[in-house]
Amino acid sequence: MRTQVVIIGSGPSGLLLGQLLAGIGVENVILERVDRDYVLGRVRAGVLEQGTVDLLDEAGAGARMRAEGLPHDGISLAFDNRLHRIDLAALTGGKRVTVYGQTEVTHDLMDKRSAAGLMTVYDAKNVLPQGFDTASPFVTYEKDGVTHRIDCDFIAGCDGFHGVSRKSVPQDALKLFERAYPFGWLGILAEVPPADHELIYANHPRGFALCSMRSEHRSRYYVQCPIDDKVENWSDERFWDELRLRLPKEAAEKVTVGPSFEKSIAPLRSFVAEPMQFGRLSLVGDAAHIVPPTGAKGLNLAASDVRYLFSGLKEFYLDKSPAGIDAYSGKALSRVWKAVRFSWWMTTMLHRFPDTDAFGQRIQEAELDYLVHSQAAATSLAENYVGLPY
Amino acid sequence: MRTQVVIIGSGPSGLLLGQLLAGIGVENVILERVDRDYVLGRVRAGVLEQGTVDLLDEAGAGARMRAEGLPHDGISLAFDNRLHRIDLAALTGGKRVTVYGQTEVTHDLMDKRSAAGLMTVYDAKNVLPQGFDTASPFVTYEKDGVTHRIDCDFIAGCDGFHGVSRKSVPQDALKLFERAYPFGWLGILAEVPPADHELIYANHPRGFALCSMRSEHRSRYYVQCPIDDKVENWSDERFWDELRLRLPKEAAEKVTVGPSFEKSIAPLRSFVAEPMQFGRLSLVGDAAHIVPPTGAKGLNLAASDVRYLFSGLKEFYLDKSPAGIDAYSGKALSRVWKAVRFSWWMTTMLHRFPDTDAFGQRIQEAELDYLVHSQAAATSLAENYVGLPY
Repeated sequence: MRTQVVIIGSGPSGLLLGQLLAGIGVENVILERVDRDYVLGRVRAGVLEQGTVDLLDEAGAGARMRAEGLPHDGISLAFDNRLHRIDLAALTGGKRVTVYGQTEVTHDLMDKRSAAGLMTVYDAKNVLPQGFDTASPFVTYEKDGVTHRIDCDFIAGCDGFHGVSRKSVPQDALKLFERAYPFGWLGILAEVPPADHELIYANHPRGFALCSMRSEHRSRYYVQCPIDDKVENWSDERFWDELRLRLPKEAAEKVTVGPSFEKSIAPLRSFVAEPMQFGRLSLVGDAAHIVPPTGAKGLNLAASDVRYLFSGLKEFYLDKSPAGIDAYSGKALSRVWKAVRFSWWMTTMLHRFPDTDAFGQRIQEAELDYLVHSQAAATSLAENYVGLPY
Repeated sequence: MRTQVVIIGSGPSGLLLGQLLAGIGVENVILERVDRDYVLGRVRAGVLEQGTVDLLDEAGAGARMRAEGLPHDGISLAFDNRLHRIDLAALTGGKRVTVYGQTEVTHDLMDKRSAAGLMTVYDAKNVLPQGFDTASPFVTYEKDGVTHRIDCDFIAGCDGFHGVSRKSVPQDALKLFERAYPFGWLGILAEVPPADHELIYANHPRGFALCSMRSEHRSRYYVQCPIDDKVENWSDERFWDELRLRLPKEAAEKVTVGPSFEKSIAPLRSFVAEPMQFGRLSLVGDAAHIVPPTGAKGLNLAASDVRYLFSGLKEFYLDKSPAGIDAYSGKALSRVWKAVRFSWWMTTMLHRFPDTDAFGQRIQEAELDYLVHSQAAATSLAENYVGLPY
């Protein structure tokens, strides 16, 4: 068979790109290695920049997000046993973020795709992008023991860090940049109201903690833990105790405890692969870059990649010009690196590192103290948090 | 003999404090370990914050600085082969810095002190502050083989990092914070016009470089070098070649080369001792803290310590209240840590570290790129560079 764009991966970036392309009449097929329920079962980020919200609206998938998402005008930094609010909206001329789980975004996009009758192949095994250094690329895959081939104009690699897309490009053409952080995040989900109506990022001698949420009734909490720690070491009771120890009294008192229904430890990593375009194959989102979750940039970067790639494909199909596609990697990477820097900085400023000495600890405290008392420094944090301009 | 305040050290902070105290009728004696010419021979910083300029004026020692100092409205950051100007004045509501050598400041203050007939004892050996945990402190010293004792109300330790003041306090009452940087600065002075009318801070794959100046005819240049490098390895020719390699073409072309008349390698260190007050003994400037020269904060921090201490002593003598003295350490340290953070950040962002990997290099580039394109981030740099509020 033949389509215009083959999208590998049915996470939010692949689905979003598919909807946007369909909106301008460009045919596309999504190939997904696993099944729909597996995709929806992944617990991920939940803070959307305004630009991501706008793009979901443009894709026609914003209705439930608008109804159920929680707009946040600020965040709090916690240190020295006090909460210090950063008024994102006041500092950025009214910009805000929206708390709405990635799983919900994926759900909405899948529903939209089904309703539009667009083709998604789940359980597509051995997906292989090929011929993308020519004008006639194609993708092969196996389904129920049968090998299929889809010819196309472009291939979009939206298949995440472990996906086949990045692995399919000539490895000597890739420049890789990586930083592993020497700790993990132990995260839980619990059906309890959040400690605060906004997020709290806490720097504490015992380690970092984050109070986040999925809704007004569902809380998402994290504590920094050793990189080699095990979930089995953390009873709910131990988790709640540790969390509250790392929060200022005023916040700890407002933590509602309850049974967790998800508990996992995630490593933190910064990773960038350059370039993001190889002939007719584009890498999008986690396929090209990973950021630590501090600062909530992962999903938003994927969305901004989609924005740039969609703009390039639109130019190709509507204006018959390859200029937008050719510019994709450069434009996307410029924004990627700014977010990678921001996520690295937030991570560095808020966590206790194994080699954080007394000097390093004071530097963190001085930085946080400066940050919450300087309009310029707080604005710098705020403009990054709500999302830098495209 | 007896005086009101004994000041140990006749560097700029001791001299400045002495003049300010004399201005409100408080008697003081300065004890200096070496002679006047030795003090004046030390080559040091040369960028004054507005607050430092104002304090020198208040001390009546600002006339020549006003006439000969060079007000700078901006600095340039150099990276990626281009100069990017940070307009300090525009970003901070008109604040600027003044380039005027520390040696000249010291000279002016010494002249002022001599003219006022205030007592300075040079070549004072074995200076020892004593009894400062009582209301009757005193300082002993030897001069020409004779031991002298001066009784006083207060002792100001303005004798630098290696001085006796910090060494005289109970060592278990001190908390020390330290960071050594794994490189040095090779600096030269040359009687040539500077490459630019403002300072240039350069980040380059070969290492950091700084174009500074003492006057319109005297240039001060630095290049980052290995920590164990030797001046003997650096002919003038090698220095000029290396400097120009690290600058953007537009700046390198404007470097006027000439024979150096001073060439030295300095290590970079961050150091803070807490607290800065022990009964009737105050630590001031380098006696309590050292910053790497990136960002030009050393002399300015010493001046802000003097401002806080002078304010406390004034309150003691004029209002008969010890509150200002009691608050000295806390107030001074709050500003010290902000400047220590800034100097550490500037140093980290601009230098190549032995362990800077490809990721770290891109983070530096992303930070610099963000910095020169974000009004908020540039303002944050600018407000620190011209000096945070007292």
